[in-house]
Amino acid sequence: MLLEAVYHRPKENYAYARTAKELHIRIRTKKNDVEQVTLLHGDPYKWQGGKWVHTSTSMILTGSDQLFDYWFTPIEPTFRRLRYGFVLKSGNEEIFYGDRGFHSSPSSDIGDYFCFPFLNKIDIPSTPKWVKNTVWYQIFPERFANGNKESDPEGTLDWASTEPTPNNFFGGDLDGVIEKIPYLKELGISGIYFTPIFTAYSNHKYDTINYLEIDPQFGTKQTLKNLITKCHDNGIRVMLDAVFNHSGFYFPPFQDVLKNGENSIYKDWFHTHEFPLQTEPVPNYDTFAFTPYMPKLNTENKEVKEYLLEVGKYWVKEFDIDGWRLDVANEIDHHFWREFRKEVKSIKPELYILGEIWHDSMPWLQGDQFDAVMNYPFTTNLLKLFAKRTISAKQFVENMTTVLHMYPQNVNEVNFNLLGSHDTARVLTECGENLNRAKQLFSFLLTFIGTPCIYYGDEIGLTGGQDPGCRECFPWEKEKQNLELLEHVKTLISLRKKHPLLANEGILSFLPLELNESCIAFTKSNGTDTIIIILNCAENTTRYHLPFDLKGRKLIDLLNEKEFAADSDSIDVELPGLGLSIIKI
Amino acid sequence: MLLEAVYHRPKENYAYARTAKELHIRIRTKKNDVEQVTLLHGDPYKWQGGKWVHTSTSMILTGSDQLFDYWFTPIEPTFRRLRYGFVLKSGNEEIFYGDRGFHSSPSSDIGDYFCFPFLNKIDIPSTPKWVKNTVWYQIFPERFANGNKESDPEGTLDWASTEPTPNNFFGGDLDGVIEKIPYLKELGISGIYFTPIFTAYSNHKYDTINYLEIDPQFGTKQTLKNLITKCHDNGIRVMLDAVFNHSGFYFPPFQDVLKNGENSIYKDWFHTHEFPLQTEPVPNYDTFAFTPYMPKLNTENKEVKEYLLEVGKYWVKEFDIDGWRLDVANEIDHHFWREFRKEVKSIKPELYILGEIWHDSMPWLQGDQFDAVMNYPFTTNLLKLFAKRTISAKQFVENMTTVLHMYPQNVNEVNFNLLGSHDTARVLTECGENLNRAKQLFSFLLTFIGTPCIYYGDEIGLTGGQDPGCRECFPWEKEKQNLELLEHVKTLISLRKKHPLLANEGILSFLPLELNESCIAFTKSNGTDTIIIILNCAENTTRYHLPFDLKGRKLIDLLNEKEFAADSDSIDVELPGLGLSIIKI
Repeated sequence: MLLEAVYHRPKENYAYARTAKELHIRIRTKKNDVEQVTLLHGDPYKWQGGKWVHTSTSMILTGSDQLFDYWFTPIEPTFRRLRYGFVLKSGNEEIFYGDRGFHSSPSSDIGDYFCFPFLNKIDIPSTPKWVKNTVWYQIFPERFANGNKESDPEGTLDWASTEPTPNNFFGGDLDGVIEKIPYLKELGISGIYFTPIFTAYSNHKYDTINYLEIDPQFGTKQTLKNLITKCHDNGIRVMLDAVFNHSGFYFPPFQDVLKNGENSIYKDWFHTHEFPLQTEPVPNYDTFAFTPYMPKLNTENKEVKEYLLEVGKYWVKEFDIDGWRLDVANEIDHHFWREFRKEVKSIKPELYILGEIWHDSMPWLQGDQFDAVMNYPFTTNLLKLFAKRTISAKQFVENMTTVLHMYPQNVNEVNFNLLGSHDTARVLTECGENLNRAKQLFSFLLTFIGTPCIYYGDEIGLTGGQDPGCRECFPWEKEKQNLELLEHVKTLISLRKKHPLLANEGILSFLPLELNESCIAFTKSNGTDTIIIILNCAENTTRYHLPFDLKGRKLIDLLNEKEFAADSDSIDVELPGLGLSIIKI
Repeated sequence: MLLEAVYHRPKENYAYARTAKELHIRIRTKKNDVEQVTLLHGDPYKWQGGKWVHTSTSMILTGSDQLFDYWFTPIEPTFRRLRYGFVLKSGNEEIFYGDRGFHSSPSSDIGDYFCFPFLNKIDIPSTPKWVKNTVWYQIFPERFANGNKESDPEGTLDWASTEPTPNNFFGGDLDGVIEKIPYLKELGISGIYFTPIFTAYSNHKYDTINYLEIDPQFGTKQTLKNLITKCHDNGIRVMLDAVFNHSGFYFPPFQDVLKNGENSIYKDWFHTHEFPLQTEPVPNYDTFAFTPYMPKLNTENKEVKEYLLEVGKYWVKEFDIDGWRLDVANEIDHHFWREFRKEVKSIKPELYILGEIWHDSMPWLQGDQFDAVMNYPFTTNLLKLFAKRTISAKQFVENMTTVLHMYPQNVNEVNFNLLGSHDTARVLTECGENLNRAKQLFSFLLTFIGTPCIYYGDEIGLTGGQDPGCRECFPWEKEKQNLELLEHVKTLISLRKKHPLLANEGILSFLPLELNESCIAFTKSNGTDTIIIILNCAENTTRYHLPFDLKGRKLIDLLNEKEFAADSDSIDVELPGLGLSIIKI
């Protein structure tokens, strides 16, 4: 057994509270190295005749990535306290692993066991339930729909009359979104994530001037109220974008520091290196990246913190928003986010808190800060396989297994899965405009665990490179839309709604690649029902053999709603090149 | 290269803020597998000609345990932001390791690098500076000294007239401690940790009745004030014990719930399963362990939280205590401890917060909860080698290397190192009453990194098994004290005071066991000065060859203050069986 590969450390993604009663325990071993893992566990204080009382539970293998196997078991400790260790078995070899390392046999010293001292309810990484069943739609308001010409800023160009640039304006607004609610409803989405809508200078509004006002180009507070009411009436939640890492250059407190330097009452609101402030040749204050017009806010400063927490609460309390997406969330201190969570959840406990973090985000996902992050590791893996063809199906499954085991299941089922955003090239462009590949991306996105998000226009095959290319006006003329792709997306969303197993109910398992190396297949099962999703990643037709004993059972092909009975032991499903099959057993 | 052994994950003990400017980066590789580790690092936003700008820094090997090597480098990122990856080299093989795993060569995709997004000052695991130079003395007040006969509880036995039992009383009190300050001063300690002194029923006082009063058996608030003033005047800090996980059975709110059941205004102060409450056959409320007379407090309840936070602040504000030791700290929720830290540090930023946790405690040591924990992994390792002789010197060094790499250096240098406490058998008893072994334990404790603590009476060779045996009355008659041991401890404390390197200045490194397998040797160095500590673990005399080029340099034997010049390239130090040598170069 390769001991160096074995990893477990209590808390984080290896031992966490799933509910007020249940713990999830995971352990990592070298791939194909260990045959059986048993958890030895008991209450730390239960002794009999001088011996610690414990019992054993078999763990199950939940996946393998390039190097490792992952094992799992849920446990309900009677008194919410647990000490535990692992027995790893391979052939005749048996090893015990606990808090003080490896032993040749299960230790009789309780100090050698790992400890989950107490399952305190408040520490559960609890996430809002509704998010599990939500399909998101990301709107970049300047480019989605223009519903009110009167609010167009000076110099607004005709809708879609030219390519987007970093500085041009096309007049999209909140009235435009209200107008298009029927479209969104028909599409089937149930949540909108808006990039920023507060007063700002740029077209993207990530340079806030006033955190407490809607940018006049987008409408008024009344417009937002109407929008949110109408969305809620139509079963659509609304998430706004909080840009708290930095303000805009024209944020009045920053202007005050620019003008009054050391005498400004706002001088401690930013990370200034010296006075007077200068923007050239390099800013002498901290900024987002090296962008002088985005001065970093000092969130450790009490006034700044209170101000931003008020902002956070204001839009929840007054406008009943359902979520906050937090821009550049990883560069703000953890103390701030902990207070933020406490404050906004005190108003609306089911508010969704979504951090923009592109890398491994465990330090923010322990129940004290965010509910989820923008799942770019998911995105990267999908694009590498389906769009860019730089990895094999096997590598894809391995990478996805890594991603799924990075976080608690509580996080996985509300993690924000996306194919692209205002910060990346568009999906169809990433696919070299190959429609079938784009369809596969949506197929995977909309059948997998997590809360999926569609970037406005991706569903009708809009193209475009990195910002500003990916921020084109939505073409509302049907003839400019790819209706085949749209239909595909609609079908998948409606299936996800109809079959909770396709969303976040049940347990997800990948089927072995050995069954058919060109197909990625996974099941979602709740014990009684199972749905199997198969994606043929090859260009040619293939037959996928279902590795279950199905004789006499009824199956439904969910894509065409045809029911068929398995009349033999073995069933093969035929999939065209880049095809999809979803079968309910 | 064994990729399965390689481990790094940002934050915790692998990447943390050492100061407001400096990060510490560590990585783990298989033992003796990798020859060179290089950190590739740069600001995430610094690009030139479409390429990310980064530089490289060699990492140093800081230790090896049974399975792994640990590598380290400090880094000062100009803009307090860092993306980084590792290049591992072994022979001709070179591997890159980052946020998305392993690559055959350094990735050009910044997303493949680990991220330390921003060094926010408030997130530094900052710990009080004075603790680094403190030598603690733990007092169990009922058994240290009786200074006021009038406060003796009914049935108090004559001092040391019989063995301690779970229920007998000998009359120790705070006046007794005041009386013995000259003794403590002569011993050289600079901090007292008191087990609980608030009103309680038992002799150990872990069953609090009144969190806001001194137990009358120990004195009055005025006595405590006198004690703290006198301690401070003599350079001695004072730490009290906070028992917040559970109250005592006779805590009035619990009595109220016992009496009034569901109608009690305190019914949510505890974790009750049903009403009326019962203690037999098993309590129908959560308790500490299965002890009916210690009902667990519901620290998630707002009133309980506010009450306990007030207690926490009261003794700091009114009595100027210097530290809180937190009993059963691991079973209380993390939210509570985060607020506790914020509240008590707002009154006294340099307050020391010490959690009682016996196992791996990283989740509590990230700068948001505790400064340190009672370092029982340290204790266990010391006892296994020096007292029980169940491990070799090599295993000892390996285990200690594991312990040192479990936490950030910020924690290591204030971590509470102990040989024993009121919860363990006494040191000399653990040593089978072998004095030289006990001396070695103190030698190691008082020269190592961390803040050492002496359990009252251990320094004069008191013996006793597990509780209640380890809670004997301090024998104040000189003839009952082991003066040789006392002298040894005094010498080491005074050396530790005189030579900051012996405390927590400089860098600690173990010397290779290969030099002399019977000797544990480590150096502490600040670049200019080096002190080498050598402990001969064997019973027979040995010569330890100093592995430095010392020709012409002056050396001081700190134990006898003799200076000698190295007149040849090679110097050997002679150590008697179980001997100690401390040499300054």
